[in-house]
Amino acid sequence: MTLWRIVAFLPALVMSGATLADVLPSWNPGASRDAIVEFVDRVTREGSADYVAPDDRIAVFDNDGTLWSEKPVYFQLLFAIDRVKALAPEHPEWQVQQPFKAVLENDVNTLATLGERGLLQLIMATHAGLTTDEFKAVVLDWINAARHPRFERPYTTLVFQPMIELLEYLRNSGFKTYIVSGGGIEFMRPWAQQVYGIPPEQVVGSSIKVVYEMRDSGPVLVRLPEIDFIDDKAGKPVGIHKFIGKVPVFAGGNSDGDLEMLQWTTAGTGERFGLLVHHTDGAREWAYDRESHVGRLDKALSESVKQGWTVVDMKRDWKVIYPK
Amino acid sequence: MTLWRIVAFLPALVMSGATLADVLPSWNPGASRDAIVEFVDRVTREGSADYVAPDDRIAVFDNDGTLWSEKPVYFQLLFAIDRVKALAPEHPEWQVQQPFKAVLENDVNTLATLGERGLLQLIMATHAGLTTDEFKAVVLDWINAARHPRFERPYTTLVFQPMIELLEYLRNSGFKTYIVSGGGIEFMRPWAQQVYGIPPEQVVGSSIKVVYEMRDSGPVLVRLPEIDFIDDKAGKPVGIHKFIGKVPVFAGGNSDGDLEMLQWTTAGTGERFGLLVHHTDGAREWAYDRESHVGRLDKALSESVKQGWTVVDMKRDWKVIYPK
Repeated sequence: MTLWRIVAFLPALVMSGATLADVLPSWNPGASRDAIVEFVDRVTREGSADYVAPDDRIAVFDNDGTLWSEKPVYFQLLFAIDRVKALAPEHPEWQVQQPFKAVLENDVNTLATLGERGLLQLIMATHAGLTTDEFKAVVLDWINAARHPRFERPYTTLVFQPMIELLEYLRNSGFKTYIVSGGGIEFMRPWAQQVYGIPPEQVVGSSIKVVYEMRDSGPVLVRLPEIDFIDDKAGKPVGIHKFIGKVPVFAGGNSDGDLEMLQWTTAGTGERFGLLVHHTDGAREWAYDRESHVGRLDKALSESVKQGWTVVDMKRDWKVIYPK
Repeated sequence: MTLWRIVAFLPALVMSGATLADVLPSWNPGASRDAIVEFVDRVTREGSADYVAPDDRIAVFDNDGTLWSEKPVYFQLLFAIDRVKALAPEHPEWQVQQPFKAVLENDVNTLATLGERGLLQLIMATHAGLTTDEFKAVVLDWINAARHPRFERPYTTLVFQPMIELLEYLRNSGFKTYIVSGGGIEFMRPWAQQVYGIPPEQVVGSSIKVVYEMRDSGPVLVRLPEIDFIDDKAGKPVGIHKFIGKVPVFAGGNSDGDLEMLQWTTAGTGERFGLLVHHTDGAREWAYDRESHVGRLDKALSESVKQGWTVVDMKRDWKVIYPK
């Protein structure tokens, strides 16, 4: 960090009583951390040419691969796999029918090629007919009980500590933080508040349709086997517009699925921040980018150079990956 | 109000330094105002058996007929009519094609029977191809320039002053206030913050589809002539679940289009509030209920008795209708 840069954002740090070590403690000193802190200072310091009013401080984050890991496959796919196995005795036809056959045979290679649409198809088949309350209970049961195959820890402990700190830092700086994920909205909402500090109304994701039904016990919403919205790729700006109705000033992602969200956020006038998490740490997490089936980072990585997005190198930039 | 009720909520009023006249000043003393104030006290006073944590204090309000007037027809329909007339020279086929024919002939009776779906069809035909930014500009131009045929005032001055005070009172009591309207989400968002104090991300409504497009000038979202979501009747609980992901504790409406929203909100355990605005004041506003084409209040009025919802009698309960 150059001296003038330190001087430039010193007032904000002094005001909040924070030091660089307090802000983002799990981030190593370097260009990525500096870029974030300098951006936040520029848009939050009154009188700054780049000042953004609190109402417009919207920050959006992808979930899979950006806030938590996504290997060997999206965690929601592992959830769906467990559901297929649990429900298989009632569905003998699944033994010969894809993608259920691949699930029951633990054919991970086939599953990895499904993409988020295939994942949603699995979810639909295994969850149609449940009410939204029943589905929430199923999600919470799984998220509390299931363990990741490599780390043998709950999935909610495989979130990125530096990104948790970034979310908090942004919120402390007056930002409203949102998840904008290709994953299922009803898969994330039950635990996002506790794990990320992000309430249900700030979780945007893919969804299946639900229908209102009056039962003897009272009204319920029943989940239908029909896709409502795919919040991935060009769907992400659409989801942001639909749910938030403002253009964010900060967007974080990690794959080509986030390309349009970062383009949409960083286009136009005014100070904007685009962040890409680059998975470079095969020892502590995973290393992958242009060739990966899950979380492919190819076009967006090339675009980051042209656009000046900050590419976070996990191995270089993060002191720790997961919370202790 | 009985003495014990006054005593019961006295601590909260003393704490905030408020008096009954400060809270909801445009509401006449009586059962409706009392029910609201007592409810808010019960759910916000710590130690109360009915205490609701701030995160769960969600209040939802219909817009047309609940927060502003809706006669002679939904104001958004008047907006669409003005658009049809402006665009008619480019569309000679509209002279013989409904619902455009009715618009061009000022056939209000036919238009009044269209319902919100018909309104959306008009909107789609007249606004397809615009970007979301262009549409926002069109809405703001109209809302600033147009005048209501009866009152000859801007539409944004035909909001209900007592309801504005209710929104503020709820927000001051830790509630997050939302609009959940059958009207178009992109028709309301451009002015809802200024008029109601409700930001875009807390406006839920009907929508047409949009698609992301990269142009030479940068990325845009283009509006398509295709319905995305109808946020009316049984669609309202669906919209609440989709956008908010929590069951509200307070719901306000005025017509049968709000029946399911009030059922969904007030079902189950815990203290909940259902409010219906009953249009009873033909002199200051309009008087209508069970037989009205626009804003029919029939089933929901009957249901209010069974459910114990508070029916606000505009003539009796409101000192003023519109802001001065």
